Order: sequence, then C-alpha cells, then structure tokens
Amino acid sequence: MKAAVAQIRARPGDVAANLATIDQATGAAAAAGAELVVFPELATTGYGAGPAIRELAEPPDGPQLRRLAAIAEAHGLALVAGFPERDGDQVYNALAFLRAGAAPLVYRKTHLYADYERALFIPGEIRPTVVDFAGLRLGFLICYDVEFPENVRRLAQAGAEVIVVPTALPAGPHAQFIAASVVPVRAFENQVFVLYANHAGADERFRYAGNSCIAAPDGACLAAAPDDAPALLLADLESAAYEDSRRANTYLEDLRRG
Amino acid sequence: MKAAVAQIRARPGDVAANLATIDQATGAAAAAGAELVVFPELATTGYGAGPAIRELAEPPDGPQLRRLAAIAEAHGLALVAGFPERDGDQVYNALAFLRAGAAPLVYRKTHLYADYERALFIPGEIRPTVVDFAGLRLGFLICYDVEFPENVRRLAQAGAEVIVVPTALPAGPHAQFIAASVVPVRAFENQVFVLYANHAGADERFRYAGNSCIAAPDGACLAAAPDDAPALLLADLESAAYEDSRRANTYLEDLRRG
Repeated sequence: MKAAVAQIRARPGDVAANLATIDQATGAAAAAGAELVVFPELATTGYGAGPAIRELAEPPDGPQLRRLAAIAEAHGLALVAGFPERDGDQVYNALAFLRAGAAPLVYRKTHLYADYERALFIPGEIRPTVVDFAGLRLGFLICYDVEFPENVRRLAQAGAEVIVVPTALPAGPHAQFIAASVVPVRAFENQVFVLYANHAGADERFRYAGNSCIAAPDGACLAAAPDDAPALLLADLESAAYEDSRRANTYLEDLRRG
Repeated sequence: MKAAVAQIRARPGDVAANLATIDQATGAAAAAGAELVVFPELATTGYGAGPAIRELAEPPDGPQLRRLAAIAEAHGLALVAGFPERDGDQVYNALAFLRAGAAPLVYRKTHLYADYERALFIPGEIRPTVVDFAGLRLGFLICYDVEFPENVRRLAQAGAEVIVVPTALPAGPHAQFIAASVVPVRAFENQVFVLYANHAGADERFRYAGNSCIAAPDGACLAAAPDDAPALLLADLESAAYEDSRRANTYLEDLRRG
C-alpha cells in the first residue's frame, strides 16, 4: 500500500483555506499513486487557533467532514485529517478516516497535552480504534497519544499494522528526539509502520517542528520531512519486506503480563 | 551520584578470569570516584558459555556472590553484575546488587530471549525490583527486559529513577538501533536514567554489540562505549538537572489506564 503524509502550513481559524490546502495536497498524493494520505492534528482549523477551535467544531455529519469526504472521493483515495468534533456541548480533539462509500470513522484523542488542549477539549474514551484498508489494518492515535508506549501497544495487540498519527508537535528542545527517536521506536517495539504527520511553520501561539516521518517495523525511517516547510512524504508499506525483522524482534509474542 | 558502566570481554566458562576482570574494572571505577559500577549479563560466567552456565550456577550465598561482595567492599562502592542463580534444580538468568553491610539483592530476568536462553533458564516472576541507594531509587532489568516498555514503566511507577540493565546484546542488524534509540527512549518516556552495560568481543557462540551507554531523562546519551572494545563509562546522575525535562514531559502523571 502506498501511503502519503502531508506536512502542511495551516492558517489558524481559516477552514476554507485549510480545506483548499488539503484538496491540493490530496491531489498531489493521488497523482503520486498514494492510496492513503494523512494530514496533521486539527488540520481543518489549524492547531493554534485557540478558543475559535471550539466555535468551529462540528459533528461528523457537518460541512468539514462532508468536504473532506468529497476531496477523498474526487481524488480516489482515503484521507485522514484532524478536526475538532462537536458532540452536543462537548468538543473532542478528533480525526476522521474518510473513503468513498463508507461513513467517516472518528477517533478522539485520549491523552490531551498541557493546559492549552485541556481548556479546549475533553479526552476520548480509551479503546483501540482500527479499520482494515487495502489489505492492512490501520490504527489511529493523535500526537501526544503516540508518545505513550501503552497506546501503540493496545493498537498492535488489536492487530494494527500501520499506526496513523496526525500531530501538532511544537518546536522545542525535545521535538527532534520525539520525531526521530520516539516515533521510530514505537514502530520497532511493535513491528508496525507509523505515519506521523506534523504541521510546519508557525501561528500566533506555536511554532511547529515539522519532521513528519514514515517509520518502518525495523525502526528505519522510510521518509522524513524538513523542519520548516510543507512536504509530501511517500512510502510503500510493504509488510512482507519486514519478515526478518518480525522473526528477530518477537515483542508481541514474548510480552508477559505481570 | 557518580555511576560507572563497565563494558568487558568475558571468557566463557572461566569464572576466575571474569572475577579478576570485574575486580580490575571495579578498582578503576572506584579510582574515578564512582559510587556504583554495573557489569553485563552473566558477567561471571560469560553469556555464551552454553550448558556450562547451568553447571556454574550458584545460590546467592555461593562463592561467586561472596567474591563479588568482597570486591565491592574492597573498593568501597556498590556493584551490579549478572550471574546464573541456582535455586534447587532451577536456574535463573539473574543479577545481584552488592554493597557493604547488606545482603545481596537478586533480580531474575523475566523476558528470556530466544531458544538459547529458554533452554538454560526459567523466567523470573514479574514484579518491580527496586532499592534506594545514594539518594536515588534504582530499578533492575536484564537485557531483553528493557526492550519492552511495560517493564521499564513498572519500575518507574514504583519510583525508580535509575534503571540498571546488565545486557548481552549480540551484534546484528538491530543492535545499533536498540542501543542508540530504544534505550534512550526508555529513559525519555519515563524521565529516568538508564545504565546499559553490554559485553564486547566474541565467544564461540555470539559476537557482542558493545555500545554500552548511560542515557539521561531527556533522552541524551551521557556516555557511550565503542562497539568492539572494553570500556569504562562514567556519568554524574544529577537528577536536579532534568527538572525542565520532567516539567515538559509529564508522561508518568498523564498516562491514563484503559
């Protein structure tokens, strides 16, 4: 399965502009032969839009996901993007997996990061969210979720072979370590692929670390983005190519419960 | 607390030679001001000694640990080394923490790696083994144990600030990734130090990867050994120096149970 990760520069609060950016990058991913394209956390509103995010939040049958579904269908691939999900008075930091002919699959971030997110959102319920697509089982997390090994393990134990992670990793002293070490180690310790899609650039609240990447089951980085510019990463997720790695690193079979 | 990691070349099956090597390296660690020195997995017998390891296994009150305790006492520091522990007919892949005036503390490896180990040993019971020393709480694992995030998390949740890991990591396509990425990520995701002490060189069964290291709570490598020669690593484990990292990476507080 050919997968794409789209590192974008979102405009905070400008959903129309961000949907246009997503449309354009989805077209480029489709032209490159991708069957799946992954966008960052809160890609529709921008991550740094602050309280406006709550006002822009929509249910899964709202215009944002309808438009994302239309983009996916028009370009003939599946699409994952972060968006703020409204459920009555509650707002979740969520993502949607969209493909032609199926209702959106929504995952709600379970591990909110810092006061900024905790003021805007409530956390989702902890349970593995997976879907079968193009012969592979995908599992979903958002940003900080992936930094906890427990969350990736839960998906791998539910059979996920590809962990899809929209993120909004800010620049800072630990960002490079998270993108270049923590993410590949999550792939290795579960013998899965990880698609890690970050923002680039800055808004009035945050500067983003870029460094989106596609990590393989042996810990190798199949593609990596620069720290400060939009980028489209592409990789063939060839599960059969990692049989030696799975034979040598039998973590899922060998793990003992205390 | 100043800690030392001793990467040694053990002679398989030659306990007297290995104890002499341990004595010499402990002297060097003490001369450098270390309060604790850590040796590899099965340091007394060598890791690759095969069935001879079962014949050389001893209970904690046997000559191997008595001699290690005397070495620690003579040089005035605490010592951790891997040894095969006999308990009736059963043999464990164990380590001992030895210091003057206290009985040996023994930890038994819980996650045995591959057929070689499973033919020689039975696994230990899963429970956190920790001890307070020099103002820090130490937790113990052996080799493959540390590659499972669950095992390090269990120790961190029991208050461990330093994870002590004798190992026998063989050379191979994944060794560098384990030593240089997995081990520092274990430190980072729990905001602890990791002392990772490997063998160097080769015996008739294995070639070892060296690359012993001391990882800090922010994921930095404080000291690292070459891949093929004995080495003595030293680092000051200054817990207070990582307050910024602990404030930014609050994994232990933020983890939610499913």
